Amino acid sequence: MSKPSSGNPTARLEAFSDGVFSIAITVLVFNILVPRNLPPDKPLITALLELWPSYLGYLLGFFLIGIMWMNHHNLFKLVGRSTHMLMVFNGLLLLTIALVPFTSALLAEYLPTAQAQTATLVFNGWGFFVALFYNLLWQYMSHKRRVIHPDVDQKIVDAISSTYRFGPVFYLIAMGATLFGTFWGIAVNIGLAIFFALPLNAKLFEGD
Amino acid sequence: MSKPSSGNPTARLEAFSDGVFSIAITVLVFNILVPRNLPPDKPLITALLELWPSYLGYLLGFFLIGIMWMNHHNLFKLVGRSTHMLMVFNGLLLLTIALVPFTSALLAEYLPTAQAQTATLVFNGWGFFVALFYNLLWQYMSHKRRVIHPDVDQKIVDAISSTYRFGPVFYLIAMGATLFGTFWGIAVNIGLAIFFALPLNAKLFEGD
Amino acid sequence: MSKPSSGNPTARLEAFSDGVFSIAITVLVFNILVPRNLPPDKPLITALLELWPSYLGYLLGFFLIGIMWMNHHNLFKLVGRSTHMLMVFNGLLLLTIALVPFTSALLAEYLPTAQAQTATLVFNGWGFFVALFYNLLWQYMSHKRRVIHPDVDQKIVDAISSTYRFGPVFYLIAMGATLFGTFWGIAVNIGLAIFFALPLNAKLFEGD
Amino acid sequence: MSKPSSGNPTARLEAFSDGVFSIAITVLVFNILVPRNLPPDKPLITALLELWPSYLGYLLGFFLIGIMWMNHHNLFKLVGRSTHMLMVFNGLLLLTIALVPFTSALLAEYLPTAQAQTATLVFNGWGFFVALFYNLLWQYMSHKRRVIHPDVDQKIVDAISSTYRFGPVFYLIAMGATLFGTFWGIAVNIGLAIFFALPLNAKLFEGD
Repeated sequence: MSKPSSGNPTARLEAFSDGVFSIAITVLVFNILVPRNLPPDKPLITALLELWPSYLGYLLGFFLIGIMWMNHHNLFKLVGRSTHMLMVFNGLLLLTIALVPFTSALLAEYLPTAQAQTATLVFNGWGFFVALFYNLLWQYMSHKRRVIHPDVDQKIVDAISSTYRFGPVFYLIAMGATLFGTFWGIAVNIGLAIFFALPLNAKLFEGD
Repeated sequence: MSKPSSGNPTARLEAFSDGVFSIAITVLVFNILVPRNLPPDKPLITALLELWPSYLGYLLGFFLIGIMWMNHHNLFKLVGRSTHMLMVFNGLLLLTIALVPFTSALLAEYLPTAQAQTATLVFNGWGFFVALFYNLLWQYMSHKRRVIHPDVDQKIVDAISSTYRFGPVFYLIAMGATLFGTFWGIAVNIGLAIFFALPLNAKLFEGD
Repeated sequence: MSKPSSGNPTARLEAFSDGVFSIAITVLVFNILVPRNLPPDKPLITALLELWPSYLGYLLGFFLIGIMWMNHHNLFKLVGRSTHMLMVFNGLLLLTIALVPFTSALLAEYLPTAQAQTATLVFNGWGFFVALFYNLLWQYMSHKRRVIHPDVDQKIVDAISSTYRFGPVFYLIAMGATLFGTFWGIAVNIGLAIFFALPLNAKLFEGD
Repeated sequence: MSKPSSGNPTARLEAFSDGVFSIAITVLVFNILVPRNLPPDKPLITALLELWPSYLGYLLGFFLIGIMWMNHHNLFKLVGRSTHMLMVFNGLLLLTIALVPFTSALLAEYLPTAQAQTATLVFNGWGFFVALFYNLLWQYMSHKRRVIHPDVDQKIVDAISSTYRFGPVFYLIAMGATLFGTFWGIAVNIGLAIFFALPLNAKLFEGD
């Protein structure tokens, strides 16, 4: 009924999502503020080192959004058609992604204060929500193979389903670790980033 | 006369539009400001809860731009060629879209004040303008099927024409509701978002 | 020597350029600042009306970048291959485009002041530079048909060459008009935007 | 195992990267602040001229990101498939790119101060890191032709390997030059930009 589309049926959905992901990840840099009004005897390098909470907030935000983009990229490789509800569930996920620069800024601002634990809880808690909306999206995609391309092996779909169940659990663990102290909340977070970056996770998606 | 283009004749028009939509929707987060200079006895969590007007402004802005992107996506699936005036009318629409982060910031700033009603009127009024420019764009596209792909069924075109007539009306209703109180103006707005997200609206566009 | 690329040889160059254009045009909204700390008896609507210089700066910036995007879009339809120097000249053009949000903010800030004329001169003068770098890019593209696709009629190339010569002239006129007063500088600018939007300009590029 | 993808296997990876590059390069303009609260007798043009460190910071940031985008564009023309680790190494590169607006702002802020040398060292030092992560990415790509397209000549791969080795060296030289004075650090930087823009560098990549 529409014009004969050649190629990828979710091209624009992916382009729009890539836009949101890349903007959210790039604007994280705005949370690192150039030190101003330094006292004359304070070396710039000291002032830059004191910005470590901002660098950490940048790194954790970058890891979170980056991991989510990789997952998004991998999931959409399996999609064979675009539907209204796919756009809606994808939109809800982007809504959570676009808020990460805020939780990351919050973390950077409050890490060196007495309220560091609250800020870390919020950051990790938001990561939990992001993972939850991922599962919602995948649930919609995979249920009865609603939008899955016919050529995709059902084994792949099942493998992702069983792996994705752990996503929110990981971030719940990060939240739980935060209750033992800010340090642990951040350590688990970094651990998650390293874990996701490892080649182990490649097998599931690359499929070669 | 130009190089033989394979594929989508409006690829770049869509890419540029996707850029504007995704940036406008992602920068909404800048309207949520990290609380600073908290008094020492004030818990961060309280300060975060007090930001509810910012979260609401973010949500409403996200819904408005998100709905408009879905409509844009659906309309351009029907386009078979690119013209100068298509770029002009599309540009005028983007001009209204790119201003939404401002009306959304205005809403967030004035919701907890005595001037909440004015801010809500402006936000909904601007939504009305956006819907109006959508109609202008669609009018241009559909009149004598100017840029509609030959393979698109005229029934689809007519169905969209009769549906789109309601777009500005919906936002007029949201403006009218605001006159009864800020709460109603926002409630209608959220209602619109839920309405557009429902699978009901899928039938028109998916066409399978 | 590289992998066999199917489709558009300048796809990424266009994607990167579309990114810069769409970001530059969307961040113009940041120059419109939500009024804060209103005196209690001042209606919000009055404060919003007083923002007219910001709206005007937004409009003129949007028109300038929008026109330039349309030209960019039209030129690259003629390109048949990508070269190192094409990327360099295109990069120089983007360098001037990405500065427009600054000249637009300057205009908005100084329009209601005694230095409005200087700000308008700078805005129009920068438009002149943008047009100049366009000509540089086109010069590179068209000279001996360096990167022009073989299927493009030489008449099209010649027609663009003779039309583009006027681009910088138009902005010189806008600069000259500013010397007679800020009003005239802005009027010519708006006139240019309307002129470029008119269907007259469609013939050259659409080629149907 | 996934849906049969027609065309470019790294399309989304490139789209996401183009997003980050184009955003990082466009937001550099935010480091140029419109002069406010001018004393009544100070001409705007004087205030604008005094912004030269901001213009210089903008230019150097633009050159650095622009060169890196050109390299990225050229490398990915050789890629024949997408892997998990390609996404990870590319992500690490983007992490360094997205920080350039910060080092560029730092440069602009401290150029007219006594701590100009430190700021220049940081800017050039960060350029060194960016170049290093480029080499890491290329190392991954080229080792045993991991993701190189079969049709790409090994001579091209070897030529790039021997050229890229110099990237970090160039920025080490820029850092070293800074030790002789801020002026030299910036001069080498501009020299690098001109060198990379020269048609000399075209031969390697264009391959026609």
